[in-house]
Amino acid sequence: MFGNVLSKEEMGCASPDPTRLAEVGFINLDANANAPVTRRVTDAVMAGLVAGTNPSSGHAGGAEARATITRARDAVSFLAEGVFDDGVVFTSGCTEANNTVLHAARTLQATLITTAVEHPSVLSPSAALQRDGVSLIRLSVGGDGLIAFDELEKHLHSTSGPIILSVQTANSETGVVQPIHEIACLVAKRGDILFHTDAAQSFGKLPLVLGDGGAHAASVSAHKLHGPMGVGAILLSDGEDRVYPLLHGGDQEGRRRAGTEALPLIAGMGAACAERAEQLDADVDKMRMLRDRLEASIVARVDGAAVNGIGSPRLPNTTSIRFEGRDAMEIVARLDALGILVSQGSACSSMRPRPSHVLIAMGLTEAQAFSTVRLSTSPLNTVDEIDRAIAAFERVCREVSRAR
Amino acid sequence: MFGNVLSKEEMGCASPDPTRLAEVGFINLDANANAPVTRRVTDAVMAGLVAGTNPSSGHAGGAEARATITRARDAVSFLAEGVFDDGVVFTSGCTEANNTVLHAARTLQATLITTAVEHPSVLSPSAALQRDGVSLIRLSVGGDGLIAFDELEKHLHSTSGPIILSVQTANSETGVVQPIHEIACLVAKRGDILFHTDAAQSFGKLPLVLGDGGAHAASVSAHKLHGPMGVGAILLSDGEDRVYPLLHGGDQEGRRRAGTEALPLIAGMGAACAERAEQLDADVDKMRMLRDRLEASIVARVDGAAVNGIGSPRLPNTTSIRFEGRDAMEIVARLDALGILVSQGSACSSMRPRPSHVLIAMGLTEAQAFSTVRLSTSPLNTVDEIDRAIAAFERVCREVSRAR
Repeated sequence: MFGNVLSKEEMGCASPDPTRLAEVGFINLDANANAPVTRRVTDAVMAGLVAGTNPSSGHAGGAEARATITRARDAVSFLAEGVFDDGVVFTSGCTEANNTVLHAARTLQATLITTAVEHPSVLSPSAALQRDGVSLIRLSVGGDGLIAFDELEKHLHSTSGPIILSVQTANSETGVVQPIHEIACLVAKRGDILFHTDAAQSFGKLPLVLGDGGAHAASVSAHKLHGPMGVGAILLSDGEDRVYPLLHGGDQEGRRRAGTEALPLIAGMGAACAERAEQLDADVDKMRMLRDRLEASIVARVDGAAVNGIGSPRLPNTTSIRFEGRDAMEIVARLDALGILVSQGSACSSMRPRPSHVLIAMGLTEAQAFSTVRLSTSPLNTVDEIDRAIAAFERVCREVSRAR
Repeated sequence: MFGNVLSKEEMGCASPDPTRLAEVGFINLDANANAPVTRRVTDAVMAGLVAGTNPSSGHAGGAEARATITRARDAVSFLAEGVFDDGVVFTSGCTEANNTVLHAARTLQATLITTAVEHPSVLSPSAALQRDGVSLIRLSVGGDGLIAFDELEKHLHSTSGPIILSVQTANSETGVVQPIHEIACLVAKRGDILFHTDAAQSFGKLPLVLGDGGAHAASVSAHKLHGPMGVGAILLSDGEDRVYPLLHGGDQEGRRRAGTEALPLIAGMGAACAERAEQLDADVDKMRMLRDRLEASIVARVDGAAVNGIGSPRLPNTTSIRFEGRDAMEIVARLDALGILVSQGSACSSMRPRPSHVLIAMGLTEAQAFSTVRLSTSPLNTVDEIDRAIAAFERVCREVSRAR
C-alpha cells in the first residue's frame, strides 16, 4: 500500500459509529432525503481523504489513488446488472448525472421524452433544453402513479429521428416503480432511442438492469444508500457511447467527466455499495418490514389516513400517506419537535411551500397534496423506533385538527 | 447544536494527523496537484459526514446542515475581497466552476476571450463552446508567460457585443501571475465584459479581489489549499448576475447550482480556508522560503538547470525548472522511487505524454518542455525535506545523462 495512506488499524478510532446516532433521540424516517452514513463509509472517506494524492498524478501516489477509484467502480457496478467497470462514470451526484445524460439531446438532436413525475433534476434540465430548442414531451401518469403506456407507445411511433427517453425507476415521494423492463422492450422495437432511468431512489433497493431488458444509462446517488452526499454516478450499458461530457477539462473518467475526482466521496460510495451488496436481501427485507409496520399502523389508527399509490409496485422503504383534511406541514413540524424526521416530499423542493408536482400529476387536489407526508425507512431504523413513531403520529394527528 | 452531530470532543480521536505523513518517508513537492489535508479539515469533513441530514430538508436536521454550509461560505468569502456570503457558489471543484462561468457565453451570446496558457478546464470547455458556435479568441503569452497586453487591448476594441474574458490569476505549472488588476482597469473602460479568473492555484496564496479592480467572477478549489478533493466554488462580486446554472434541478446554492450539497466536502473546504486565513502571512512566507531554497540550490548545483518564467511575478510556492538535455519523465520516475513526489506539469494532463501547452506557448521547444519538472511546496513541508529533495535532485541529475 502506498505509504501516504494510513492503514485502517492506524485509523482504528477514526469514525464515530453512526448506528449510535439513534441513541441521541432522533428517529430518522427521511432516508429518501439522506440515509445516514455507516461506520464503513466514514472509514473509507477518511482513508480517501488522508491519501492526499491526485488520481491524475503520474507518481506512485497517483497510482494508489487510481486503485481506490477502481475498487469503488467495481463495487458500484456490482449492484447493477450489465454494467462493466468502465461503464461507471463518477459525478458530483445524481443531479449532475441526470443533467449530463439529458444534455445529449442537443448533441444527438433528439426529441426528449420524460414524465410528469420526475425529480426536479430531470424536469428542470429538460425545461432548460426545451428553452434551447429541444422538443420535449412529458408523459402523464395515472392515479396509480404509473405512466400511461399507450401514450408512450403513441409518441414513440409518431416521433421521427432520435429520442432520449428518461423515465425514473422509482418515485422519491411515493415509491411507485415504473415498468422499466416493459418500456425497454418498446424501446428495443423502435430503435434509435437512448433510454435513461433516474435510479437514485431504487439503487440498492431494487435490481437495476442495464442493456438488454433495461435502460442504456442510469443515474445513481450515494447518499440514498448510506454513502456520502455529493457523489453519484452515471452507469452505462456495455458499449453505450451516446453520453457526452457536460464538464470539459482533464482526461478523468474515461474522458466522460472532467475534474479532479472527489476521491474521499468516491471511496465512500464504493464502501456503501459493497456493504449493501453483502447484505442486500436482509437490508431490503428489513426496510420493507419496517415500512409495512409503520404504514399499516398509521392507516389503521389515524382517521382519514390513506396511502398514495398503494396499489402499484413500490419501493420497499417508502410510503406516502395523506392525512385528509390535515396540514402536513404542521404534522411534519410537530413530529420534528418530537425528534422524528419526516418530510412533505422530495428534499430538493421541500424548502418552498408548493404542492407536490408528483401528487398533482396523480390527480390529487392541492389540498390532498398539502396533507401528504412522506416516510422512508433505512436498515438502520429499528422496530422500537417505528413503534415510537407510530405513537407519535397518533398523538400529533389527534392534535392537528381536521378541516371540515 | 443539532443532536445528530457528534461533538468535536466525541470525535476527538477521529482524524489521523496528516502532518505525520511525512514521517513515513514521502516528501510531497506536488502541492499544486493536491495539498494534503490537515487535521482540522479531516475533523470538519467527518462532522459533515455524520451529520446525516440533507441541507434541503425542512426539519431541524436540514437547518443544522444549512448552518454548516453558511459557516463554510463565510470562511471561503473571507479569503477574498469584495465577495459577500451569497456570492459563494459551491461546486464539485474548479473544473465545474470554470465550465459554469464560461457556458454563460451561450446565454449572453458573448465572444469568449481567454489565453493560451489556461488550465484544461478552461481550454477544453472553450473549445466545446467554439464548436457550438461561440466566437473564441485565445491570447498568446510572451517568453515570460505574461499575456500580451496590447493584443488584449486590440481585441477588446475590435470585438463588438458582450465579451467573457477568462484569464487565470496564476499558472499551475510555472506559477506566473497575470496582471489581473491592470486587466480589470481595461475591462472597466470598455464595459459589457464578464471578467472571470481561474484562481485555483492562487487562492489562499495571493490576495484575490473581486469587483472594483478585480474580476467579476473567480473559480477556486479546496484541494490546492489543504481542503478535500471534489469541492470548489465560484466567487462572485457583489450583484454579479451573469453566471447561469450549468446543473439544473433543485433550488440549492441560491438557484445557481442544483444538486444535493456535498456537505462533508463543503465543511472541509470551509475549515481549510479558515485555517489558511488565520495563518496567511506565515504560510505564504514559509512556502516562499522553501521554494526559494529549493529553486536556488537546484539551479546552483545542477548543470543546465534553469527556471521558466523566472523574471515574472510568480506564486510563492511554485517553480518550473528545465533540466536542459535531460528527460523530465525519467527524473520524475527516479525521484518517485526515492519517495519524492514531483510532476511534469498540471496533474490533469500529466497522464498523457505530450509537451506542456503552457511551456510551448512561452516559446520553449518540445525538447525543453519535456525536460521541465514542476515543484510546488506547501506549508506542511519542512526545511529538512527540502534539503533532502535538493540532494536527491543532485544525485538523480548526475544519473540521468544529458543528451548532446
